[in-house]
Amino acid sequence: MKAAVLNQIPGDLEIEDISVDKPAANEVLLQTTNAGLCHSDLHFMDGSWNLLPVPSVMGHESAGIVQAVGSDVQYVKPGDHVITCLSVFCGHCEFCLTGRPNLCNNNAATSRPDDASPRLFRGDTPVGQFARLGGFAEEMLVHQNALVKIREDMPLDKASLIGCGVTTGMGAAIKTAKVEPGTTVAVIGAGGIGLSAIQGARIAGANRIIAVDITNEKLDTARVCGATDTVNSAEVDDAVAAVMEMTGGGVDYAFEAIGRKETVEQAWSMSRTGGTSVVIGMMPFGQKIEITGYEIFMQEKTLKGSMMGSNAFRVDMPRYIDMYLDGRLKLDEMISHTIALEEINEGYEMMKRGEGARTVINF
Amino acid sequence: MKAAVLNQIPGDLEIEDISVDKPAANEVLLQTTNAGLCHSDLHFMDGSWNLLPVPSVMGHESAGIVQAVGSDVQYVKPGDHVITCLSVFCGHCEFCLTGRPNLCNNNAATSRPDDASPRLFRGDTPVGQFARLGGFAEEMLVHQNALVKIREDMPLDKASLIGCGVTTGMGAAIKTAKVEPGTTVAVIGAGGIGLSAIQGARIAGANRIIAVDITNEKLDTARVCGATDTVNSAEVDDAVAAVMEMTGGGVDYAFEAIGRKETVEQAWSMSRTGGTSVVIGMMPFGQKIEITGYEIFMQEKTLKGSMMGSNAFRVDMPRYIDMYLDGRLKLDEMISHTIALEEINEGYEMMKRGEGARTVINF
Repeated sequence: MKAAVLNQIPGDLEIEDISVDKPAANEVLLQTTNAGLCHSDLHFMDGSWNLLPVPSVMGHESAGIVQAVGSDVQYVKPGDHVITCLSVFCGHCEFCLTGRPNLCNNNAATSRPDDASPRLFRGDTPVGQFARLGGFAEEMLVHQNALVKIREDMPLDKASLIGCGVTTGMGAAIKTAKVEPGTTVAVIGAGGIGLSAIQGARIAGANRIIAVDITNEKLDTARVCGATDTVNSAEVDDAVAAVMEMTGGGVDYAFEAIGRKETVEQAWSMSRTGGTSVVIGMMPFGQKIEITGYEIFMQEKTLKGSMMGSNAFRVDMPRYIDMYLDGRLKLDEMISHTIALEEINEGYEMMKRGEGARTVINF
Repeated sequence: MKAAVLNQIPGDLEIEDISVDKPAANEVLLQTTNAGLCHSDLHFMDGSWNLLPVPSVMGHESAGIVQAVGSDVQYVKPGDHVITCLSVFCGHCEFCLTGRPNLCNNNAATSRPDDASPRLFRGDTPVGQFARLGGFAEEMLVHQNALVKIREDMPLDKASLIGCGVTTGMGAAIKTAKVEPGTTVAVIGAGGIGLSAIQGARIAGANRIIAVDITNEKLDTARVCGATDTVNSAEVDDAVAAVMEMTGGGVDYAFEAIGRKETVEQAWSMSRTGGTSVVIGMMPFGQKIEITGYEIFMQEKTLKGSMMGSNAFRVDMPRYIDMYLDGRLKLDEMISHTIALEEINEGYEMMKRGEGARTVINF
């Protein structure tokens, strides 16, 4: 099968022929139908998160159809439509048992018995799978706990977005922050995750949702997704001051959906006394943020991280699909480009230039 | 009446004769019976929070007996025993109406109609009241919403501690963090606030409570208050590493009860994946803290401030008094020294040297 492989860091992706093993007992082989381009892959490709063995097949936001299952798989059968998720869960650790399977780090339980035994090969060379998925490939061989089965009337290209960006943004609003009806929200960054956080805030019933970005094109999409106000931070002196003035002292919930020190600190500063700021964006490894002690205790502010939208993805993703099919979650509007696997490097170049919301590969 | 007055910043306190006005409609005149020495006053006396007009009567952790009430006061009558609290609340703003009266900043509603009209004088010179209280004085004239009425069988010297330190620490554990039974807790700093956070965690049913301090005397008191483990951070290479090893990866709740950048960052680092760190200590004005972005979102950690223990003090303080009189909240053990008003500077010198838990003035 063809796959987009990272062979050096930093580096672009190369389309190569890769062979796939047969499913082990708990594994599932998929035919990948779609894969979204998410910014997190870039952090590994450019080395700002220098933790990835190479060669590895990149990609972690995919949907597909089950081709074959291992002997112990009862959850899905060939022909089922599925989304993959990097929040692979063991189902029996403390995190899984307390409603936080997104924090499961019991990887051993969902790896091949011999950790050194890879699923993918290029000739005799083992090839890794980014995020234990490797979604930029015509086929994916993953643990069954990396999958959620979905309704067959759900278009798979839209479904793929739910595999990471949509779940991360929606979940940050609905599950991590638990945005309440009537509240005021700011979202910094109107890419795939930020637009999803805006939608989560809208669906949760926020009264006012302020989108902050540097491009008017993205702010237009933000309005389509539910933003009631926009701030082009490239066009104002101080985005924080602008939001403070619009809200008379800050928002109840501020979301950072980029992953930069400066914008995380802006989100913190935009939150009002007693308010909460949520970091969704993937910050460069080792990067620190600075916040003022006074604001922490005297204003009783909260800073929270959201790991993949605090998802229990087998519960959340089917709900998000129902919302899409009910017309409440907008996904068509978030797909700005559809490309072939061979065009993947151009897709990432567009992302680096800040163009469009989400690019999806059609296999 | 005699009062301890701050005349210059930085400066020590001077015992002076001060005259007190009569109560306005919503005001109450108290005979102060006791006042605790809390570290927050020091920040204003040494100028690290340079926001205080001088001269001002310091002190904000007091108890006393009502002497006279203004024409509109129905809540208390002469002879009632009361605690004062700096969380003066208006009762009708958004914060007050949503269970967060500790964040009320509607000072105008609880000030004298003419803000320039002071309650205290030295000759013709107006004298301020620290924290709208001025507790280091034989008499206090305050708004009725700065008071909570208490049981008359409650000793007033113990009651005074509840006016700030105990409520701040207990509330941080019970109300801000909502420590759950069975969890693991660390408290950095075993002064009055830290010991109260330890007690809050114990009363909330935590299984393991690790006290961290640099003096063994305080750690001994911490054990009396409920700490199950102690770390003398002056005797180990790395207090964070020690707590991480003791807990196999960090605590569910970490409290910082000192107010220093270094220890706030330690509390953050001691909290486990999915855990919460709470800043209780009053950090120097303008001081920032640095935390690593990776830990925020990837480990889905939470950092929260606790302003005076998230108190609704008219609800909380009577509960804490019941706990004391039931033998569950230890206050006798927290009073290390009892002094006269004239000894107040020596009391603060002891605090600066890190001696004892809480010093209380007996008027």
